[in-house]
Amino acid sequence: FESKLPNLGVSIFSQMSGLANEFSAINLSQGFPEFDAPDLLKTQLNYYVQQGVNQYSPSSGVPRLQQQIADLAKRRYAADINAADQVTVTSGATEALFVAIQTIVRPSDEVIVFDPAYDSYQPAIELAGGKSVHIALSAPNYTIDWQVVSQAITKNTRAIIINTPHNPSGKILQPQDIKALKELVGTHNLYVISDEVYEHITFDQQPHLSVLRDDELFTQSFVISSFGKTFHSTGWKMGYCIAPADLAVEFRKIHQYVTFSSFTPAQHALADMLEQQGEHIDELSGFYQQKRDLLASHLSNSRFKILPSQGTYFLLLDYSDVSDLNDVEFCHWLVEQAGVAAIPLSVFYQNPPTDKVIRLCFAKNDNTLIEAAQILCQL
Amino acid sequence: FESKLPNLGVSIFSQMSGLANEFSAINLSQGFPEFDAPDLLKTQLNYYVQQGVNQYSPSSGVPRLQQQIADLAKRRYAADINAADQVTVTSGATEALFVAIQTIVRPSDEVIVFDPAYDSYQPAIELAGGKSVHIALSAPNYTIDWQVVSQAITKNTRAIIINTPHNPSGKILQPQDIKALKELVGTHNLYVISDEVYEHITFDQQPHLSVLRDDELFTQSFVISSFGKTFHSTGWKMGYCIAPADLAVEFRKIHQYVTFSSFTPAQHALADMLEQQGEHIDELSGFYQQKRDLLASHLSNSRFKILPSQGTYFLLLDYSDVSDLNDVEFCHWLVEQAGVAAIPLSVFYQNPPTDKVIRLCFAKNDNTLIEAAQILCQL
Ligand SMILES: CSCCC(=O)C(=O)O
Ligand SMILES: CSCCC(=O)C(=O)O
Repeated sequence: FESKLPNLGVSIFSQMSGLANEFSAINLSQGFPEFDAPDLLKTQLNYYVQQGVNQYSPSSGVPRLQQQIADLAKRRYAADINAADQVTVTSGATEALFVAIQTIVRPSDEVIVFDPAYDSYQPAIELAGGKSVHIALSAPNYTIDWQVVSQAITKNTRAIIINTPHNPSGKILQPQDIKALKELVGTHNLYVISDEVYEHITFDQQPHLSVLRDDELFTQSFVISSFGKTFHSTGWKMGYCIAPADLAVEFRKIHQYVTFSSFTPAQHALADMLEQQGEHIDELSGFYQQKRDLLASHLSNSRFKILPSQGTYFLLLDYSDVSDLNDVEFCHWLVEQAGVAAIPLSVFYQNPPTDKVIRLCFAKNDNTLIEAAQILCQL
Repeated sequence: FESKLPNLGVSIFSQMSGLANEFSAINLSQGFPEFDAPDLLKTQLNYYVQQGVNQYSPSSGVPRLQQQIADLAKRRYAADINAADQVTVTSGATEALFVAIQTIVRPSDEVIVFDPAYDSYQPAIELAGGKSVHIALSAPNYTIDWQVVSQAITKNTRAIIINTPHNPSGKILQPQDIKALKELVGTHNLYVISDEVYEHITFDQQPHLSVLRDDELFTQSFVISSFGKTFHSTGWKMGYCIAPADLAVEFRKIHQYVTFSSFTPAQHALADMLEQQGEHIDELSGFYQQKRDLLASHLSNSRFKILPSQGTYFLLLDYSDVSDLNDVEFCHWLVEQAGVAAIPLSVFYQNPPTDKVIRLCFAKNDNTLIEAAQILCQL
């Protein structure tokens, strides 16, 4: 049997969470919260399940959830989104990314991705017959050199995938990045897939520069987000894509044959949550900034160098003063011998740099973070 | 913008359910039950949600649900399935079908499908770069002529999609069909995608001939099913794929980048349901046979000719004595003027035959079925 994805195995997140369980390690690898979804969300889910709202939703989503998503875009980004035509609810941001890529990538199209890149982009591009063109960013700042991006564009370039706040680096795009992106998109008639799943987690008062803030850039874009990150419910697999109507029509054609629709009662519960407790979202950055600062302060006496994290729930550590192992070996050693699971950065690269960097997830209870930091301080 | 699926629009099921709402018609079009999921399933869902089981499950599914699925295959089909290696939980059977097709179909591969065919097969094949080769079956019996299938096989033929019990016709495959399929698969080294989502709904004591009953055929197969049909919970979007380990490995690579995982608390609730109330499944055929017979008997004085239904929750009607309209026009007339929504059969065909046939869903309360039949009797 010839594999469609011969170079890929089980995702690094599944591997590392598996090892964390096997070795009873503290799991700071796969990104998911240790704390639970808000009570209202859970109560409302049960309400709709008991009410018997258990059959297919419309393929693009429950209309009142679509509307709440549009209202949120208005409130946060002053964006005028037409819920019925532009918002599509998906089974997680992973599905939204997959479908957006299937929607625009044709055989031999090239798509520019920035490494370190989330692991689903490249296989999705390849399954669509396209080619991912990788631009490597490096520790400690992971800054994009738009000159280099411009040079990577060929007549086959079809799209650019951006991710802000950026997993794994925690970097957020700045006004000059959006400006440069917009210029390239305009000049070369490109599409943008904007992975904004950590949109509500930015630190030090920095605003999230959603593509939704820019009417012109939005006309060429698929903006993707996730409720799992926002409402501590990664296992509910609820996300969405906002796109201009002409792109949304094509996105929906594919979505209806990939999953058709998503868990109906959860859509209603999310609509209630957005309607009644919008403040949860406004408080999220502060909540996670405290976590970041707690973990960083408890690591300050370690031999790890802490890299800046501007958003997401991830923190990068340079371990070059701790070990000579490469990062994959080091992470295996760390989970098996030291009892802390982390993610090696090299797996996010096509051509890994020599950086010695690992990623920790700080969406954990304070005592978990402190305990992990104590272990790391002893290395 | 060039569409990847230029000939496709909104699925017929979404269209017709939309019209049913708009015209307040009785909706016998899109297949979903009017009755609710079992109490135990709903109670257990809430239990796990409240317990805080709300983060990612393993990508292939919650192990105890995988095991229950394997146990069910043992109980119903005497199949020896290894849960950990062969069962993958998906976000509905639609996702499982999409991923199975992506797993095996390479550019220019041909896949044989039997028309009338479920609407997701062809777009999924095309998105993988393949070509669907359609073999049309006709009213009233929708019998497969395996001689014709054999002649349709070329050196590019990669797979055959079967669907038993068959949506929309209600036809179930017989021992001679499985034998003929097996011969072709062996001779031409083909893969089988077996859509068995109505596996637990067969009538008149006829057994469901799952591919899982045949060890040899199974080595080349992806067997796909759905909990939505079985537990009256189509809106939960829970399904699965059982495949031999070498195929499951490749299936999972793609699944992890399409949705990664499915609604975690629902997986646990389904495991409890399967463990504690297996009799629900054993009673399903009787439950739906009563519905089929009720609808048929109330239509016996109509001018519609009732076609045989051996399984599924669908019944076909020949309306040639009622109207000269083609079936799409007739279904529009029916929903808008008469107040009953049905599905025209021609949309399931690449080259529709001249049959004048519509599909009714009888997964409805008895009074709904009687009311719809009374309307149809007046035409
Ligand atoms: C879908 S598993 C990966 C979770 C995640 O987003 C991450 O750890 O980066
Ligand atoms: C996913 S909507 C279609 C439901 C169904 O299986 C049918 O009506 O045939």
